Amino acid sequence: MGFQKPPGTQDFLPNSVERWQFVESKARDICRRFNFREIRTPIFEATELYQRGVGETTDIVEKEMYTFTDRGDRSITLRPEGTAGVVRAFVENKLYGEPDLTKLYYIGPMFRYERQQAGRYRQFHQFGVEALGSVDPALDAEVIALGYTFYTEVGLKGVRVEINSVGTPAVRAAFRERLLAFLAPKRELLCKDCQSRMERNPLRVLDCKVDQKHFEGAPSILDSLDEECQTHFDALKQHLTGMNIPYSINPRLVRGLDYYTHTAFEYKAEGIGAIDTVGGGGRYNGLVADIGGPDQPGVGLGLGLERTVMLLESQETELPDLHVLDVYLVALGEAAEQEVSKLLQALRIQGLSAERDYQGRKMKAQMKSADRLKARYTAILGEDELARGEIALKEMASGEQRVVRLDQLAAEVQQ
Amino acid sequence: MGFQKPPGTQDFLPNSVERWQFVESKARDICRRFNFREIRTPIFEATELYQRGVGETTDIVEKEMYTFTDRGDRSITLRPEGTAGVVRAFVENKLYGEPDLTKLYYIGPMFRYERQQAGRYRQFHQFGVEALGSVDPALDAEVIALGYTFYTEVGLKGVRVEINSVGTPAVRAAFRERLLAFLAPKRELLCKDCQSRMERNPLRVLDCKVDQKHFEGAPSILDSLDEECQTHFDALKQHLTGMNIPYSINPRLVRGLDYYTHTAFEYKAEGIGAIDTVGGGGRYNGLVADIGGPDQPGVGLGLGLERTVMLLESQETELPDLHVLDVYLVALGEAAEQEVSKLLQALRIQGLSAERDYQGRKMKAQMKSADRLKARYTAILGEDELARGEIALKEMASGEQRVVRLDQLAAEVQQ
Repeated sequence: MGFQKPPGTQDFLPNSVERWQFVESKARDICRRFNFREIRTPIFEATELYQRGVGETTDIVEKEMYTFTDRGDRSITLRPEGTAGVVRAFVENKLYGEPDLTKLYYIGPMFRYERQQAGRYRQFHQFGVEALGSVDPALDAEVIALGYTFYTEVGLKGVRVEINSVGTPAVRAAFRERLLAFLAPKRELLCKDCQSRMERNPLRVLDCKVDQKHFEGAPSILDSLDEECQTHFDALKQHLTGMNIPYSINPRLVRGLDYYTHTAFEYKAEGIGAIDTVGGGGRYNGLVADIGGPDQPGVGLGLGLERTVMLLESQETELPDLHVLDVYLVALGEAAEQEVSKLLQALRIQGLSAERDYQGRKMKAQMKSADRLKARYTAILGEDELARGEIALKEMASGEQRVVRLDQLAAEVQQ
Repeated sequence: MGFQKPPGTQDFLPNSVERWQFVESKARDICRRFNFREIRTPIFEATELYQRGVGETTDIVEKEMYTFTDRGDRSITLRPEGTAGVVRAFVENKLYGEPDLTKLYYIGPMFRYERQQAGRYRQFHQFGVEALGSVDPALDAEVIALGYTFYTEVGLKGVRVEINSVGTPAVRAAFRERLLAFLAPKRELLCKDCQSRMERNPLRVLDCKVDQKHFEGAPSILDSLDEECQTHFDALKQHLTGMNIPYSINPRLVRGLDYYTHTAFEYKAEGIGAIDTVGGGGRYNGLVADIGGPDQPGVGLGLGLERTVMLLESQETELPDLHVLDVYLVALGEAAEQEVSKLLQALRIQGLSAERDYQGRKMKAQMKSADRLKARYTAILGEDELARGEIALKEMASGEQRVVRLDQLAAEVQQ
């Protein structure tokens, strides 16, 4: 009998977890520079929050949520995305009462019960930011720049930014009519998914990968923008240009979530086959009020870390070596054995990484272990050295060996 | 209508999340020095794993698990502790086949549906380590030292280590008989919990906070140890002494989990009232085989981060200031506004943290914002400066102000 991880989940083990640590520490450092601060919301929330905050007719809410009843008879759901929880926390903790903008980031697991396929996980991980409290298009540009800077600095090649304006709800309603008039005669030609989207969310039809050949001459939402939307979109483009963020306009970009207003954007990357979107986001001026808060605007992004890590691996990006051992201690004889525990602790509280054998292996096997651990130094303690208060120190790269005083070991290694 | 976080969960917001970041980065750095590497296992596992790995008759499994059925009709459980998942991953990924010891750490959320009370959360967070593959008591000492070093370095005062030997299953069975013979005549005097524990796990009776007065003269498990257990325990004490880890022996310490063998230990701290245990662990030589793996020994610990953070706050430990802004940029006029976006991005890609106003506030309000954000510098860009390619730079601590070239701004601030 053996247990297995649940389908669609992963174990992140040493030698692969280091890439995650690297990507996450980059995300944190970029948020520091962009003055976004961390928020951590619970792994699960009231189910109704997602029905309200993500949208009842989205795939996520209809088909993909991990929803269950807890021992107190509440319906709770493992978070399928990050924005709803952050906005709930923004409202519940009255962060909108602060004098400054609320600029938050999160990194953590999300859960969707998706069909299993390569690169799709039921527990997946997102890095996201939310900026709440301003309608300034310069802030949309800042959020887009943050994501672009993240991808660039983790070393991802060939990242492109696509932007669009999805307008206000009024603009979208008008455009919806124009679009349906265009689509109606072609209805029978479209795929089943698109036929169903025509009922529920016709704007998403234009994003279909299968039916692009039928969409030539389709109306563009960019021709339906009112003056407010146009001004916002023009200013966004100007800021992005000023900031040196390369972008292109994709008038068919709408994103899977219903709550976006004005700006929607995506990051695309090469080399992952059909899945070319690695992240995206947009402005959501109605969402805070939708879930019961004050009328506060927001803009944010969510980046899929699995896809980022997968692309970095497929592009064979080099990682800084994050796991190097300073000293491997070898004890010869019982008295030395006892002393080695003591030395180990002394080295470690001085900030050095140190290791010893715990499996009673012969010296040769211990030296191999030191090699595998990429030890910078091996320190060998025999009975004679111990009696003299000394230890033999070998630099692994050069092979040079010298004898140092026990109380000088940390200082010698630290040099 | 407003949404609330689920009962027993928390939002970690800016100004309190920094303490968590500090504690976690300490944990990671100590693991680096002790040569433990990170593992991340899924947030949920098959329910049966916990029934096997934690124990069917424990409070956790009987009363506290978040168990539900997923859309594929599997019974899954949000992890109530960290060891079972790590051991499952150790077996499933055949890490026992590696030539070196497997030394792993984890940091993350755990879930138990507990009665609500101060300091108890249903989503709580643990830092834990597991060392698999050696029976050497020096490794037990290393794990105990790691936890002690962690508490010391995060700045917790008054931490004590208590150790015990809970023997092998055979030793425990013999002791159980002696103990029941002692307890039987007192049965009616004991609390309801203890009466129930007498049936199920009599060793835990001696740990009861209510009934201590009845336990004078109770037999000690330390008098029941066989030679193997005694040798292991003696060596552990010797290593701890050599490593300068202060400890005391508590023969009544048994921990809540059934799987410990030989070493059990706890960390106690002052200042949190009734809840004085902040973490603990022990050796578990039978657990890997219990969940279907090879016969591999292990030793580990789990530390409650909520309690650690709560104690640090109640002890008023100072935190390094983790949130300082390098530059706050102020724009005067529309042309400057556009330039500020560009400057902001330039500063940030050079590693500096920088911020601007997005709410159309007057200069005075922006300067207040710079103060709140603890900006080291404020840089003010007016139309005249812009025309000359310059910007006014004010050092906030000294109040000194000078004019610098726009392309020198980053360099000036970096000094």
